[in-house]
Amino acid sequence: MGLLSLLLFLGTLVVATNGSPEVEVVHQIHPLRPQCGSAGTHVHGLSCLSWRFGVEAHNIIDWKTVPRSCKKYIGHYMLGKQYRKDSKAVVDQALSYAQSLKLAGDGKDVWVFDIDETTLSNLPYYAHHGFGVELYNATRFSKWVNEGKALALPESLRLYKKLLSLKFRIVFLTGRPESQGNVTAINLKKVGYHTFEKLLLKGSAYTGTAVTYKSSQRKKLENEGYRVLGNMGDQWSDILGTHIGNRTFKLPDPMYYIS
Amino acid sequence: MGLLSLLLFLGTLVVATNGSPEVEVVHQIHPLRPQCGSAGTHVHGLSCLSWRFGVEAHNIIDWKTVPRSCKKYIGHYMLGKQYRKDSKAVVDQALSYAQSLKLAGDGKDVWVFDIDETTLSNLPYYAHHGFGVELYNATRFSKWVNEGKALALPESLRLYKKLLSLKFRIVFLTGRPESQGNVTAINLKKVGYHTFEKLLLKGSAYTGTAVTYKSSQRKKLENEGYRVLGNMGDQWSDILGTHIGNRTFKLPDPMYYIS
Repeated sequence: MGLLSLLLFLGTLVVATNGSPEVEVVHQIHPLRPQCGSAGTHVHGLSCLSWRFGVEAHNIIDWKTVPRSCKKYIGHYMLGKQYRKDSKAVVDQALSYAQSLKLAGDGKDVWVFDIDETTLSNLPYYAHHGFGVELYNATRFSKWVNEGKALALPESLRLYKKLLSLKFRIVFLTGRPESQGNVTAINLKKVGYHTFEKLLLKGSAYTGTAVTYKSSQRKKLENEGYRVLGNMGDQWSDILGTHIGNRTFKLPDPMYYIS
Repeated sequence: MGLLSLLLFLGTLVVATNGSPEVEVVHQIHPLRPQCGSAGTHVHGLSCLSWRFGVEAHNIIDWKTVPRSCKKYIGHYMLGKQYRKDSKAVVDQALSYAQSLKLAGDGKDVWVFDIDETTLSNLPYYAHHGFGVELYNATRFSKWVNEGKALALPESLRLYKKLLSLKFRIVFLTGRPESQGNVTAINLKKVGYHTFEKLLLKGSAYTGTAVTYKSSQRKKLENEGYRVLGNMGDQWSDILGTHIGNRTFKLPDPMYYIS
């Protein structure tokens, strides 16, 4: 069994049990020992916790890489418990919002999810590429995506299942290219996202920003009669722009920035 | 010398030196020992750090009070070093953005600041009222404002001074009522905000949300020929809505929420 197969196997355990196997997975992903990831590590006067706050509150924008001095901090955060806890806090809000709604029940009540670091986790990839310290390499990342081995983000999967039971229609709206539509659909289904109304991928001709691309796709949805009641992403570009939906949710992601 | 006079006196030291007197001030404000405020205190399964992330990234909205279980955590955060560091990280971004601009130099280049917890700090008040755990009491808070003893937020004052030297015009846009215009102007000047183009306060007739009020005020500014190049607040309602300005900045504030 190769390392990635092992990861995937253990990854399913994470999803299945929400318990201690997570620590095992983490140890397989990266030699860093999981720590809380909440302490304000300081290098060169920069508090990595402050950097993370700056990123998540959209004060720090258009950055290319994680500050080198925060590599360990971000690694501990992503592999440790805080990332999961932060995700849970967002999902709890989303759930309580979703449960407060009275759906029309005409099949037009939609929840939009981004994919990478929103529903699927590429943590095994990023753990081997410096947790965002290395410059994004499209070729390498594309190769990883084609392996179809991304993991489910357990809190997002929990939300997804609940939304389905509440009769929401699920739309995945991703910056992944159309050429990766098949592998993406298979990956989504394999880790538990088995039912969805649409999987919207980016046409190869599109050259604009994620904000305008995703805005135009949501506008199309509205033109088709859908109501975007919830919209969740790990990037601000998932939830800014136009037609953003009734309410938006920002999952944590201190590893990369997409404008 | 009364406690508040002492606070104010020591508060000016904080602004003046950026050094160890801060700890002294803190000890005068509240018996809590300053700690890092970065650890993920847990009570009843809630990570207070996750709660703070949820608030700052605008996932947790329309909340009335800080969770009672996070009172100590928020107290430590506000009195300790992390609040200052988080503020510094935002101000550093704002400064580097401001310095990157080429101003027209016609006196119409504006930076909009909110007041409470953006340029002035009401921490002495909140330290005596549970750091946001107590329900907001308009009468009591109004009394505190009328004392004119709010402190300068040192990082914001640093930004303000630099913006002035870059020839920005400063506009204060606050939800404080017009009846507190005089005491607010005096308080601002006393702690170092001596020069400003406008101080915009909320007319007593206005009954809408902060978002719509502040949007309408910024629209008025634009109609008068001003260009809002920067817009900084501690609340999302300061920087959402319309006419938000070229770029917005969200300072930390885990003590209260204004919609």
